[in-house]
Amino acid sequence: MRNIKLLLQYDGTEYCGWQTQPNGVSVQGLIQNALAKITGEVVRLTGSGRTDAGVHALGQVAAFNTDSSLEAGTFKNALNANLPEDIRIIEAADADENFHPRFDAKHKTYFYIISNDRVLSPFVARYVWHLPNQLNIENMTLGVQSLSGTHDFSAFRGSGCGAKSTVRTIYEITVEKLDAISFMTTGISGSFIKIRITADAFLRHMVRNIVGTLADAGRGKFTTEDIKMIIESGKRPLAGPTAPARGLFLEKVVY
Amino acid sequence: MRNIKLLLQYDGTEYCGWQTQPNGVSVQGLIQNALAKITGEVVRLTGSGRTDAGVHALGQVAAFNTDSSLEAGTFKNALNANLPEDIRIIEAADADENFHPRFDAKHKTYFYIISNDRVLSPFVARYVWHLPNQLNIENMTLGVQSLSGTHDFSAFRGSGCGAKSTVRTIYEITVEKLDAISFMTTGISGSFIKIRITADAFLRHMVRNIVGTLADAGRGKFTTEDIKMIIESGKRPLAGPTAPARGLFLEKVVY
Repeated sequence: MRNIKLLLQYDGTEYCGWQTQPNGVSVQGLIQNALAKITGEVVRLTGSGRTDAGVHALGQVAAFNTDSSLEAGTFKNALNANLPEDIRIIEAADADENFHPRFDAKHKTYFYIISNDRVLSPFVARYVWHLPNQLNIENMTLGVQSLSGTHDFSAFRGSGCGAKSTVRTIYEITVEKLDAISFMTTGISGSFIKIRITADAFLRHMVRNIVGTLADAGRGKFTTEDIKMIIESGKRPLAGPTAPARGLFLEKVVY
Repeated sequence: MRNIKLLLQYDGTEYCGWQTQPNGVSVQGLIQNALAKITGEVVRLTGSGRTDAGVHALGQVAAFNTDSSLEAGTFKNALNANLPEDIRIIEAADADENFHPRFDAKHKTYFYIISNDRVLSPFVARYVWHLPNQLNIENMTLGVQSLSGTHDFSAFRGSGCGAKSTVRTIYEITVEKLDAISFMTTGISGSFIKIRITADAFLRHMVRNIVGTLADAGRGKFTTEDIKMIIESGKRPLAGPTAPARGLFLEKVVY
């Protein structure tokens, strides 16, 4: 049986997330329906991981098995013709029959954008968390240092997370202040904060819970010591709130 | 009476354009309603010019007279609190009582983005004209040279245009090929074409008719000589089609 690998982008605003749900329209569900239409087969699509409702993807990876003899490029075009504009297949290629989008991923990168201005540009509103009161970036930058490395991230695990182990390794985590955000071929000036995390894998809501905790650090609620203590405690209630989905992007999955 | 100058941005997707219409929701209408609510006065807002339904603005300028004693900054905040997320007041300031957003404008700049790829990223779909078949950029670049300068632009004037004179001066017009478009803090790779026009003023649909004509040049339908001839003819039917509104941005107005 063939194994077709897809690279895809989606604007998650309108979806209940990656994974098929009993109620709600999911990215996985829409692609599976399109594949059923194209191949006449019942196709199961496996993603590199789930993204929550409202989370966006610039480089999600997924794969499916098929007996179809269609060329991979034809799959790409036929899928795009059968999907809404806010989900696009960027690449489709035959992969090794053993390739698995989740188990074979070496690391994944997410980024998160906070708008830290009084006024939010209409062109970024769908893609940021708007926190109009000025955050202390230095506190946030100091805060991330405790998060880097291998830890039990129980304190940042969302409820309903099915992972057996809660140990993950963050290879890189950065907080960057930006005076403008890129849009089309121009820049929209303002005060933005980008948090970018590369890890071997992520627990449910892990990025959003880290961002919510860093925002609290930016508000002066947590010191670097507090964040260290929160990790060690393993207690979710000690960490900050879950940041909204709209500011989160799955940037890439590396194999 | 005070004269308050506004700098504003809007995503035009949901609106019938700048100008108040009997049917449909306009940017001007929404701001006037918000001003009436804030001041208790009937306020007339004057823009630097109309933008069509679906056209976006990164730097529209408008002004209104008021007897209110509210500070300009308070107007900015109160307006934003009473406007939808896709219209934002970026700046508000007291202006000279004689300042007029349209008559005092020295020049205005619009840009237009074409996506010239088979696949359109979900993150640019609202803001580009998608032409999947490869355009000849050299033909387009040669084509714009005839448009630069002072001409009677009757051939590029949309029906219903009320301008008395059809002579306009294009100070700068460029066609640029881009291998990526900026989005948030990253780049979305692909094949994009940016057309940017600075002129003293524009006739109705002038930019969109120029872009439609340049796209025809990119398809090999028009040579540079043809474009020269189209301008000289003054005949709208000889020029290309009106490009869709979604790819057009009012970038700035200079006083």
